[in-house]
Amino acid sequence: MVEAVTLENIEHLAIGSAFLGTGGGGDPYLGSLLCREALAEYGPVKLADPAELTHSDSVFVAAAMGAPTVMLEKLFSLEDQDRAVRSLEQRLGCQASVITSAEIGGCNSMMPVAYAAMRGLPLLDGDGMGRAFPQLQMTSFNIAGVAVAPMTLADEHGNVVTFEAENGKKAEEFARPVVAVMGAAGCLSCYPMTGAQARTACVRYTISAAIEIGQAIAGATYGDLPPIERLLRALDDHQYYDTPTEVFSGKITAVERTTKDGWVTGECHVETIAGGSSAVVAFQNENLSVHVDGTLRAVVPDLVTIVDSETAHAIPTERLAYGQRVSVIACEAPPALTTPEALAIVGPDQFGLSEQYSPLGKLHEDGS
Amino acid sequence: MVEAVTLENIEHLAIGSAFLGTGGGGDPYLGSLLCREALAEYGPVKLADPAELTHSDSVFVAAAMGAPTVMLEKLFSLEDQDRAVRSLEQRLGCQASVITSAEIGGCNSMMPVAYAAMRGLPLLDGDGMGRAFPQLQMTSFNIAGVAVAPMTLADEHGNVVTFEAENGKKAEEFARPVVAVMGAAGCLSCYPMTGAQARTACVRYTISAAIEIGQAIAGATYGDLPPIERLLRALDDHQYYDTPTEVFSGKITAVERTTKDGWVTGECHVETIAGGSSAVVAFQNENLSVHVDGTLRAVVPDLVTIVDSETAHAIPTERLAYGQRVSVIACEAPPALTTPEALAIVGPDQFGLSEQYSPLGKLHEDGS
Repeated sequence: MVEAVTLENIEHLAIGSAFLGTGGGGDPYLGSLLCREALAEYGPVKLADPAELTHSDSVFVAAAMGAPTVMLEKLFSLEDQDRAVRSLEQRLGCQASVITSAEIGGCNSMMPVAYAAMRGLPLLDGDGMGRAFPQLQMTSFNIAGVAVAPMTLADEHGNVVTFEAENGKKAEEFARPVVAVMGAAGCLSCYPMTGAQARTACVRYTISAAIEIGQAIAGATYGDLPPIERLLRALDDHQYYDTPTEVFSGKITAVERTTKDGWVTGECHVETIAGGSSAVVAFQNENLSVHVDGTLRAVVPDLVTIVDSETAHAIPTERLAYGQRVSVIACEAPPALTTPEALAIVGPDQFGLSEQYSPLGKLHEDGS
Repeated sequence: MVEAVTLENIEHLAIGSAFLGTGGGGDPYLGSLLCREALAEYGPVKLADPAELTHSDSVFVAAAMGAPTVMLEKLFSLEDQDRAVRSLEQRLGCQASVITSAEIGGCNSMMPVAYAAMRGLPLLDGDGMGRAFPQLQMTSFNIAGVAVAPMTLADEHGNVVTFEAENGKKAEEFARPVVAVMGAAGCLSCYPMTGAQARTACVRYTISAAIEIGQAIAGATYGDLPPIERLLRALDDHQYYDTPTEVFSGKITAVERTTKDGWVTGECHVETIAGGSSAVVAFQNENLSVHVDGTLRAVVPDLVTIVDSETAHAIPTERLAYGQRVSVIACEAPPALTTPEALAIVGPDQFGLSEQYSPLGKLHEDGS
């Protein structure tokens, strides 16, 4: 287990969470710059073991909400994040003792590190998704029955909007257009929890996991194996992310992308170099499914990430382009995301897909 | 001056505020039903004289926000209004001692009466517009420098959203789409003020004015004069609403109405019965201007209301129809709305009009 996020492993965290981001959540590289600055100024961020949280801990989410393409242009400030968390602390009359990430994929794996550093607080070694999802209600916190509200949203002009919403989906519906008015990006805090709640409601040890996956991709572990092989090994050695599989490998022949209602939806088509076989990855911000020659090989909440065939670095949806040599890597979601209760919140139908969820391992058996 | 809103004068308040609503804000008749019930249950609502408010008073706005056409279908509940005001009280750590209306036009002149009755609190004899306007920042409170925030918005499912916005316009931008998600209507509280602030920031004695205008239209005052004449006399006898004028009289020949971005915009065309002369009333929820044979005769913030030629009852924008015999009545806005500071917030350009503001009296002199 990793004990702290430091200047030494922050890049690995960025690389690993880009993989776990399954194409969405924005490129963590930009966030890692903010983290680097914060870690240099305030020192390393201790990771809090979820198993050791107690009733007396207060766990606050630090997160960004908005369009990843805008986040590329509008770097988040810790001041805005602080305004969101402090407003929630004030509303609840209690101080955060632990900061947590809503998702381990993309930008949102970075901001909480920088913010925890600034506050001098530990960061939970866990998160609310074990990957990235596009909506506020799609968390293990919600699946476990933790209320999203009260939730605070802050922008760079000092505006703060507080939502007391009946459920996570409503909070999402209320907040999304407010974020649009804020210039398509804002900082939020939500799902305030006791340590005892977070202990069972989070997806555990995902910060460690992201760092270890990042180390493998970067070549710091698993010796002389090729990058894709190292990535698969790192996933295999983790307690979740089962059945890691290189589903397909080839060249991108087409990317269809539509930006609508704040989502980037579309498909990425990949063909084998020799031709004759092709894969289609469907996405809505995050990658949702992969079909190979018409057969479903993996579907959300299982993870589907398109990586560079040479380096095994994840390619965010917005950077997919014709001609790239890529591999489609899939693995199973953490078990907390695949219960019947969880599938009602993060299952394929929640993304408008007609496919039923079937674990990657099962689809693999059926197909082979 | 009227001393209380009672079961006897509530209908007059509804009739008068329909006139002051200049076509927008929804038909107060439905709101008057809610009021009637509340007044029957809780007794009359004492009117608080703005001149007698003190520093120790806490004045809270009770208002509905949303599309008037939806309000026709979705009657407001006092419980939702209470949730909005109580949330604001809790946020500020103080209790309301006086309730006030944001606007005296339309539905929003009614809800505060019913709510004040329920709370057993006096209602301010004054409001924030002296008429109706379509947006949150368009108030004499804002013009006088009172902050709109914190502002609370509640719906019938128990959701409450609290806005700490940098200014009124931003609060409007944030809240409008949230109201849309709430089903196009919600209850709000905002512009929390001390009595000393409200004393100077409100448009004074407008509840009395609306009741007196309503009495005149209904024929309870001004003896045997015809209805339109009674209306003009009542306006003339009031300290504001100067130069009351029957700008035009005739038959509606066309109503062009477009619902876009939550607004109802359009034009109402009126022709003299004999033909040969015509008037055009432009509206965005409320009536904004009237041209007669191509010449501007009145423009916002001055009041332009289309009334039934026979009864002098105001016709809300959504009820204008081909063939109606109507008179276009105009009068000058309360002086607080026509200062340079005020025109920057409620002047013609704020509604996308190219006309400069010129008081009705001045336009009348120029034209005659």
